[in-house]
Amino acid sequence: MNDEHISSAFDRDLEAIQAEILKMGGLVEEAIMKATVSLETHDSELADEVCNADASIDLLEEQINQEAARVIALRQPAAVDLRVILTVLKIAANLERIGDYAKNMAKRTRVLSQLTQINGATASLRRMAREVERMLRDALNAFIMRDSIMANGVLVRDQDVDQMYNALFREFLTFMMEDPRNITPCIQLHFIAKNIERMGDLVTNIAEQVVYLVTGTLPDDARPKMDLTSMELEVIPQSK
Amino acid sequence: MNDEHISSAFDRDLEAIQAEILKMGGLVEEAIMKATVSLETHDSELADEVCNADASIDLLEEQINQEAARVIALRQPAAVDLRVILTVLKIAANLERIGDYAKNMAKRTRVLSQLTQINGATASLRRMAREVERMLRDALNAFIMRDSIMANGVLVRDQDVDQMYNALFREFLTFMMEDPRNITPCIQLHFIAKNIERMGDLVTNIAEQVVYLVTGTLPDDARPKMDLTSMELEVIPQSK
Repeated sequence: MNDEHISSAFDRDLEAIQAEILKMGGLVEEAIMKATVSLETHDSELADEVCNADASIDLLEEQINQEAARVIALRQPAAVDLRVILTVLKIAANLERIGDYAKNMAKRTRVLSQLTQINGATASLRRMAREVERMLRDALNAFIMRDSIMANGVLVRDQDVDQMYNALFREFLTFMMEDPRNITPCIQLHFIAKNIERMGDLVTNIAEQVVYLVTGTLPDDARPKMDLTSMELEVIPQSK
Repeated sequence: MNDEHISSAFDRDLEAIQAEILKMGGLVEEAIMKATVSLETHDSELADEVCNADASIDLLEEQINQEAARVIALRQPAAVDLRVILTVLKIAANLERIGDYAKNMAKRTRVLSQLTQINGATASLRRMAREVERMLRDALNAFIMRDSIMANGVLVRDQDVDQMYNALFREFLTFMMEDPRNITPCIQLHFIAKNIERMGDLVTNIAEQVVYLVTGTLPDDARPKMDLTSMELEVIPQSK
């Protein structure tokens, strides 16, 4: 067995694992999309689908973990190839967590459909979620194509998601101050907004891993955290 | 070089990495503890310490990642040893995230000290955080001692943390309904409670990894998710 054989065997294994990552990514994108639609249309059956599909996402992560361990043990990849495999593990872990957030979002859909409706909120959440879904697709494409420029683009776009979240947070606070009946629905909507914001952070993690894989260094301003709510003092006057 | 030499070289490397994990765990425990104290005593200097120390935690994770990759490439460990190294990577990733939550908690301390105080809230948060800190210590000890029974004990205790969170969530809702001036501080306190609840989930992840490492299978009821807020309908009457 010569080096070329070992190398191409590793390449085949790697391609198989990357295909699994894309499959997992596809399931997660679908979960985000369906959770968002179910939120807007109060479609509890669709929400159930998202909740049930999460097991497949978890299972895929488990398979990718095992396959990666098998490839490392069997092929004993050198530094660069090993880095790819370790990146795969990190991407899979992030995808699994995004799936969890989509599931949590879907769970809240059913609750929300039975509460006072808050004007325009679900449309804003849909825009946020749609952007995160697109970022996820680009981050995974950037991984497959080893394209650090595309990955850096994803990092920049996460700031838009954070801005959308901060605007929504303020809006929800206003609604709550206006009428105590809005408190429960706004808290639920805020949970969902926060879930989407975190999904954006996790996509950012994936994009950072791609940048690291391709360039060997993490982006300078790795993970700019733009949830400004920890810096809010009095968003709106405290007494009314 | 015979097998024994390779094996003991691997063991030395592994011990060094495990020492790094314990060091990282110690820093994270300290961050949780300091963030909690700063919350209760409105000590913004202590909160700053927590925020500044997070960089050391991130750096340690980075070092552990690199060291693990080096050991895999150099020692080419067999299946069981490889599993230990991959577990180390997962534990480090979870510790890093717990550190992020402690930092976020500390950030909110400064904001909270300037808002209306909510009776008894910080004491409840302290109890939650203290429990998570203890669970973390036990989960890491369980890892070092390869003790799946101890790790399983941590999984059970996370349900207490979830129950404390659910009780606090209801309490905050009541305060918000009572007086709109409570909305902003309660939202901040709720963020902190949610952060601690998530820290508990991350400690649970670590304990699950230990169970998996020792027994080869994940706990049956892996990660029971007990944040009931996604199932809340009307915690308290919607109109007052």
